[in-house]
Amino acid sequence: MIKGIYTPIVTPFAEDESIDYGKLKHNLDLLSKSDLDGIVVLGSNGEFVYLNHKEKLEFIEFCVNNFSKEKNIIVGTSYDSTIETIKFCKEAAQLGAVAALVLPPHYYKGGMNEEVLYMHFTDVADESPIPIMLYNMPGNTGINMSSKLIARLAKHPNIVGIKDTSGNIVQLTEIVRDTDEDFVVFAGNAGYLLPALTIGARGATVALGNILPNECCKVVSLFQEGKLEEAKELQVKLVEINFLVTGGMGVPALKAAMDMLGYEGGIPRRPLRPLSEDKREVVKAALKNIGVL
Amino acid sequence: MIKGIYTPIVTPFAEDESIDYGKLKHNLDLLSKSDLDGIVVLGSNGEFVYLNHKEKLEFIEFCVNNFSKEKNIIVGTSYDSTIETIKFCKEAAQLGAVAALVLPPHYYKGGMNEEVLYMHFTDVADESPIPIMLYNMPGNTGINMSSKLIARLAKHPNIVGIKDTSGNIVQLTEIVRDTDEDFVVFAGNAGYLLPALTIGARGATVALGNILPNECCKVVSLFQEGKLEEAKELQVKLVEINFLVTGGMGVPALKAAMDMLGYEGGIPRRPLRPLSEDKREVVKAALKNIGVL
Amino acid sequence: MIKGIYTPIVTPFAEDESIDYGKLKHNLDLLSKSDLDGIVVLGSNGEFVYLNHKEKLEFIEFCVNNFSKEKNIIVGTSYDSTIETIKFCKEAAQLGAVAALVLPPHYYKGGMNEEVLYMHFTDVADESPIPIMLYNMPGNTGINMSSKLIARLAKHPNIVGIKDTSGNIVQLTEIVRDTDEDFVVFAGNAGYLLPALTIGARGATVALGNILPNECCKVVSLFQEGKLEEAKELQVKLVEINFLVTGGMGVPALKAAMDMLGYEGGIPRRPLRPLSEDKREVVKAALKNIGVL
Amino acid sequence: MIKGIYTPIVTPFAEDESIDYGKLKHNLDLLSKSDLDGIVVLGSNGEFVYLNHKEKLEFIEFCVNNFSKEKNIIVGTSYDSTIETIKFCKEAAQLGAVAALVLPPHYYKGGMNEEVLYMHFTDVADESPIPIMLYNMPGNTGINMSSKLIARLAKHPNIVGIKDTSGNIVQLTEIVRDTDEDFVVFAGNAGYLLPALTIGARGATVALGNILPNECCKVVSLFQEGKLEEAKELQVKLVEINFLVTGGMGVPALKAAMDMLGYEGGIPRRPLRPLSEDKREVVKAALKNIGVL
Repeated sequence: MIKGIYTPIVTPFAEDESIDYGKLKHNLDLLSKSDLDGIVVLGSNGEFVYLNHKEKLEFIEFCVNNFSKEKNIIVGTSYDSTIETIKFCKEAAQLGAVAALVLPPHYYKGGMNEEVLYMHFTDVADESPIPIMLYNMPGNTGINMSSKLIARLAKHPNIVGIKDTSGNIVQLTEIVRDTDEDFVVFAGNAGYLLPALTIGARGATVALGNILPNECCKVVSLFQEGKLEEAKELQVKLVEINFLVTGGMGVPALKAAMDMLGYEGGIPRRPLRPLSEDKREVVKAALKNIGVL
Repeated sequence: MIKGIYTPIVTPFAEDESIDYGKLKHNLDLLSKSDLDGIVVLGSNGEFVYLNHKEKLEFIEFCVNNFSKEKNIIVGTSYDSTIETIKFCKEAAQLGAVAALVLPPHYYKGGMNEEVLYMHFTDVADESPIPIMLYNMPGNTGINMSSKLIARLAKHPNIVGIKDTSGNIVQLTEIVRDTDEDFVVFAGNAGYLLPALTIGARGATVALGNILPNECCKVVSLFQEGKLEEAKELQVKLVEINFLVTGGMGVPALKAAMDMLGYEGGIPRRPLRPLSEDKREVVKAALKNIGVL
Repeated sequence: MIKGIYTPIVTPFAEDESIDYGKLKHNLDLLSKSDLDGIVVLGSNGEFVYLNHKEKLEFIEFCVNNFSKEKNIIVGTSYDSTIETIKFCKEAAQLGAVAALVLPPHYYKGGMNEEVLYMHFTDVADESPIPIMLYNMPGNTGINMSSKLIARLAKHPNIVGIKDTSGNIVQLTEIVRDTDEDFVVFAGNAGYLLPALTIGARGATVALGNILPNECCKVVSLFQEGKLEEAKELQVKLVEINFLVTGGMGVPALKAAMDMLGYEGGIPRRPLRPLSEDKREVVKAALKNIGVL
Repeated sequence: MIKGIYTPIVTPFAEDESIDYGKLKHNLDLLSKSDLDGIVVLGSNGEFVYLNHKEKLEFIEFCVNNFSKEKNIIVGTSYDSTIETIKFCKEAAQLGAVAALVLPPHYYKGGMNEEVLYMHFTDVADESPIPIMLYNMPGNTGINMSSKLIARLAKHPNIVGIKDTSGNIVQLTEIVRDTDEDFVVFAGNAGYLLPALTIGARGATVALGNILPNECCKVVSLFQEGKLEEAKELQVKLVEINFLVTGGMGVPALKAAMDMLGYEGGIPRRPLRPLSEDKREVVKAALKNIGVL
């Protein structure tokens, strides 16, 4: 069963924008030794939209071969097309993924009503050899999956959980309320990890795990031990840097922060650009501010 | 000092849309005996936008005279005009309010940049004889006050707190982080009361307090006693009815629920209309569902 | 019948924020001699939200007494409350307004569904002694009145037109399509005056008329004479300054531009502030750019 | 040079969701004989997001071989990745496209600031063997390209025009104002074709051209002949059906309408579904209403 803290790993690129597998290996080694329960490959922070399909398959294979066998690998298999998504779920299963993280199709926003989304996820879950984890990410897709839709989909035997990155804590509460105990409700951002745990989240998939994996896990353990004041202090401490490397400046900032902390971020692929020098100073200051640099 | 749970009381109207002071008295008596720490008069749930100024002054006076002297009365004194807001703060002070809850002016959304809002609140706080509590209510105003603006305003000696109804738990965390211990950070909706307490909120001003005051207070006491599982269960239980009487169906639903639970909601003033029979059934079902009816 | 070009006049304030009737008289004299068909008093550009009710009545009376008897005066009579709006329509009628411009109530955005808005406008139109002109202004109210709702309301004998400031030219086309010939469809902003005329608008109510009344009227006459290329050139020329004094920098910029062109803008009332020196230069440059300064 | 009316052709699928080249051939034959100036292949109405890269190349080749040599073929070559977009532009050029229509990358909405978009389009235009036409489509991408950004990009010798589907007629006016005479400003939707022509648009790319190509072209010719009243009547007539097959019900409605009018829509690819029977009746009624069925 999936629980705990996962991080959606970045895809490090070399100067020529090719995937830098050396840097990736370095990161996988470090994350294997961390407290994380697993990684998400080809998530939003993995710049999956910038990889072609062949690159994606190679990338998954490399991760499976180089990440701790004792931890889980979830793979992002989203395409706008139902058929392509199903095909990718099958390939990811073959390569060793334990679950597939699937976004709602979102190009035709006007056409993606709840019935269409329900059918899409049902079709994918029917055919996927591995369990499906829903991925609600309105900031990038422009579509919010309602708690009602999620509760309906949660009844499918092959849909086992959700990563909700909406930031709407009431919606997260409703999902917890309307799904069974074993449905995996994950916060999608470290910014509200503790509040999410309070209302019943079973874990989280957080970009911040790329740079501060053990700190993220620590929020969970402090909460579980009932050390609420300490948990709060840590949560409050993490909010600024988390904002910078996610909503604030995104993947380029996350990669820059990785470089500062002994990981290998590499550069992002265009149209994204490496973080500018002045923004890099902001990230550095935030890391120093919480004593990790 | 302001802390704990407040409810923004409704304004009950008679069939002819005049204020029904008898019904109001009935509610004030019940709330005086509840666990609530105080009430907000002329808040959003008080339909303040539908009262003319003369009615507002009478309404405040009546509340001051008929509500428990051991609890606090905060008064909503918002006008779009700075001058009118200041004038109203002075009148509310004279009538006995302990603090004034003030919305950002919001008609000219394009013109209400952070500097303009900063100057408005500073001007009001400079002149108001009673402390100012900021009121962030983007759902109704279309304007979100950033945590940065709030932190800046929190430095003013006469601005003592904020009611944040944005529902953005990360923003609430940032406000807690960036203001002093004695700055009153209030959740603005019962839907995320427990998560807000977890990250350091000092209380809340919740519409739900009009019908379930003691249950709202119970979330706080359970949290303070470290009974997190019970607190979670209660929080989850309150989410549905809270949604119905706030974002879902608004003031008409809140008034209908009051009628069902022994309070006196009265009718809303036009353009609002009494809740339709079928929606009333939805509210009733939700109340039965959690065992309070 | 209402047609042609109207301008929503500004309310000039003196340094102490009192209404400066001398400046107002100056403007009314100039506008009386312009090509405009009339003025709107207490519209959005009149800062109506910053005047108390007593000031509003005095203001209307002054305008009626000091504006050309050969042109029309429409008065903005909007309040969130249905009762207060009706009362104000009656007062405006008594003072000499030919029609009342009425916004949808908008504080409780979630509650203002089409049925509630339909009832509000119907109630107001039933009781108002003067014809009602609907005022769709989503930029300030956060609520868009659909073409379907407008067509439904247009059937009321006392609802005679609409000022649509949505900027949605397709919606304007639908309104023209779905209402009778004599329903007054007005563009609400000079930015799309010519396109609006092309699809059947009968005129416009434009803030730009405060500074360039004859130029706005010229767009209409060129269009009516079939001089499309000249009309286009003038329309394109007006777009920049129009943007600056409306969406771009709003009322403070409009007042500053008035000062530059021989009108008397006065200062805005707080929370609005007089235009800063550098923004004033931008306005000046735009006016010079089109040769009116 | 590109001008006049283009239609973004649909991709007809057979029951098994494979591309139905027989149906496509049928449509290309009809459109070849129409008044259209050209077609857009793999645009939004072509469900380009549901085709894999191999299918896209075959599709383009088929269109080039089966569409009138006297008309133009523009190809949609958008990918989120700069590299993939450039590669696709080169392939499209090789296959015979006269220009490439390119969307802004849009998955990381927060990261797509104007500088990043500027660099992306510049990189693509630098490397593409065929001219680039910008494609502003905020409804699907969630990103609006400002008139300022467009004017800046218009200076690039290999960026020759824009299809603006924002529906913002003021923005379209600004683009006309800020770009040279030979920069191709195209309306992106038939709903505002006449207004767009009035302020200087040089043509349009309209989904409606799939079913009513000659009627769309007629709006242009009537406008050019100065028959404004007739042009207005036709424009108003087209608005309802245009809404249904674009914003209202999208590609499934467009395909259903094609079937009704002698074209071959085929079914959409999942997650899209064929239009339901009751919605089909709405489309049929709209077509009858304007006398084309």
